[in-house]
Amino acid sequence: MTKTLVFGHKNPDTDTICSAISYAELKKAQGADIEAVRLGELNSETAFVLDYFQVTAPRLVQTVANEVSEVALVDHNERQQSVDDIDDVTVTAVVDHHRIANFETSDPLYYRAEPVGCTTTILLKMFRENEVEVSKTVAGLMLSAIISDTLLFQSPTCTEEDKVAAQKLAQIADVDIQSYGMEMLKAGADVSKKTVAELLLDAKEFNMNDNKVEIAQINVVDVNDVLSRRAEVEALMTQNIVDKGLDLYLFVITNILTNDSVGIAIGSKTAVVEEAYGVKFVENQAPLKGVVSRKKQVVPILTDTFAK
Amino acid sequence: MTKTLVFGHKNPDTDTICSAISYAELKKAQGADIEAVRLGELNSETAFVLDYFQVTAPRLVQTVANEVSEVALVDHNERQQSVDDIDDVTVTAVVDHHRIANFETSDPLYYRAEPVGCTTTILLKMFRENEVEVSKTVAGLMLSAIISDTLLFQSPTCTEEDKVAAQKLAQIADVDIQSYGMEMLKAGADVSKKTVAELLLDAKEFNMNDNKVEIAQINVVDVNDVLSRRAEVEALMTQNIVDKGLDLYLFVITNILTNDSVGIAIGSKTAVVEEAYGVKFVENQAPLKGVVSRKKQVVPILTDTFAK
Repeated sequence: MTKTLVFGHKNPDTDTICSAISYAELKKAQGADIEAVRLGELNSETAFVLDYFQVTAPRLVQTVANEVSEVALVDHNERQQSVDDIDDVTVTAVVDHHRIANFETSDPLYYRAEPVGCTTTILLKMFRENEVEVSKTVAGLMLSAIISDTLLFQSPTCTEEDKVAAQKLAQIADVDIQSYGMEMLKAGADVSKKTVAELLLDAKEFNMNDNKVEIAQINVVDVNDVLSRRAEVEALMTQNIVDKGLDLYLFVITNILTNDSVGIAIGSKTAVVEEAYGVKFVENQAPLKGVVSRKKQVVPILTDTFAK
Repeated sequence: MTKTLVFGHKNPDTDTICSAISYAELKKAQGADIEAVRLGELNSETAFVLDYFQVTAPRLVQTVANEVSEVALVDHNERQQSVDDIDDVTVTAVVDHHRIANFETSDPLYYRAEPVGCTTTILLKMFRENEVEVSKTVAGLMLSAIISDTLLFQSPTCTEEDKVAAQKLAQIADVDIQSYGMEMLKAGADVSKKTVAELLLDAKEFNMNDNKVEIAQINVVDVNDVLSRRAEVEALMTQNIVDKGLDLYLFVITNILTNDSVGIAIGSKTAVVEEAYGVKFVENQAPLKGVVSRKKQVVPILTDTFAK
């Protein structure tokens, strides 16, 4: 049997890691030879989750073509967010909840995307449709992914399906959603021990009308915990702009208690962000009122504004 | 409620028409305001199918943005195969069984693709997953699509899932697969009354490494029924090359009784076809032994050869 590697995006978050593990479990139950791997270091929230449910982290890989010819993607599809040698392997399956872009295949494949808050909400359906039982541990991981991606159901990306899925998974995993969820989110939002590079860990690159745009996001319980280190943060953002030839680097600092964000923008195209949100950057900084979702409240509006 | 139009590709075939009707039925049962439409004239096989099950053809449209802001696509995703003003509307859902290419969205959407022989095989799953019953008439249409796309299970694109789906649909529709299937395929393969334009009706355009490639296919019971009109056929193909600026036009004439094809190729890049299949075109014509599937035996091999 052909071995498949399954992985989520670079700069992995809880949904990416837990979806890869869950997808591998589903496919193993159906007889596949598959291994979940990851493309980067775990963030502190995901480390908390894996530790809580006592699951070993997927193996870290830099490339995949040296090991396999076929891969499955979870929680992403855009080439620049995937493994560096993605063009050297065949993508046979994708399970995702993002827009589709910079993705092309020669052959038909399995592609399952739904506009829901979390990839594991879709995966739970797939377990059901294939009549595969979700184990207690995997249910815990899948629930954690939903809590993470929907900010405990507060994000505008959260759908009724995510809420229903979370209830079912919480029952199987035997955890209390509210208390576990807040503990988990706070573990991720504790920035006190983070290096500057770790503050910018959850960064994704997008191509918007031929502009290279990097958008990083961090969840905090007090934006000043990050803003107090602004000089260092901006230095690293600037370094990234130079290294990657970016046109815009936007860093979204999201307060998970108030559900508002502050944006820091650097690059030649910061005016696009100003136009998109009707704000003015003062010392590279502007409030982004009510913005908590990169996917729903940042990427589409910037894509549209760049396209003008 | 926002009205949605659902449609398959240009130059519609049986799967495209029947999938649009079936998808609309499924969504209507779930309360949606949706209408199936078509982007071109019915071929003789599809006309036979709709007549047999006494279903009215979907309304013909040239554009969609003048009517709706949201659309669903079945049986295709590539922009150049879709409605001309596809860029002016939002694609909220896709159900397909082809490769993904030239497709990009700003927002997350519902996308369901599986590497099976026919779109209605996937749609049958969706009826089940949503616990919507398939009516006798719609089952007949869905079965016809599977018979058409798999050449009565003879095509290499045909999977076990297609066969199982066809059995279930035949039961609901109360038809005998073999006798109905041959009658239907022969209705489509009767080229005696077809104009030259109708011989080339099932044409799809592809972008392969920046080359514009048109691939048409016709099913026949005797290739000489088409080859005897080669001069006219080639004249129309040449006209198309000029009008659309094509680099290659390949016409695949498939014998549904022997499961072989003959190819006619015109354009500046015919050498790519020769390299792909290890054949030589003599008077623009070459045998394509064992080739019956454009999707599985033509598009991927030409894509790869163009990429060399």
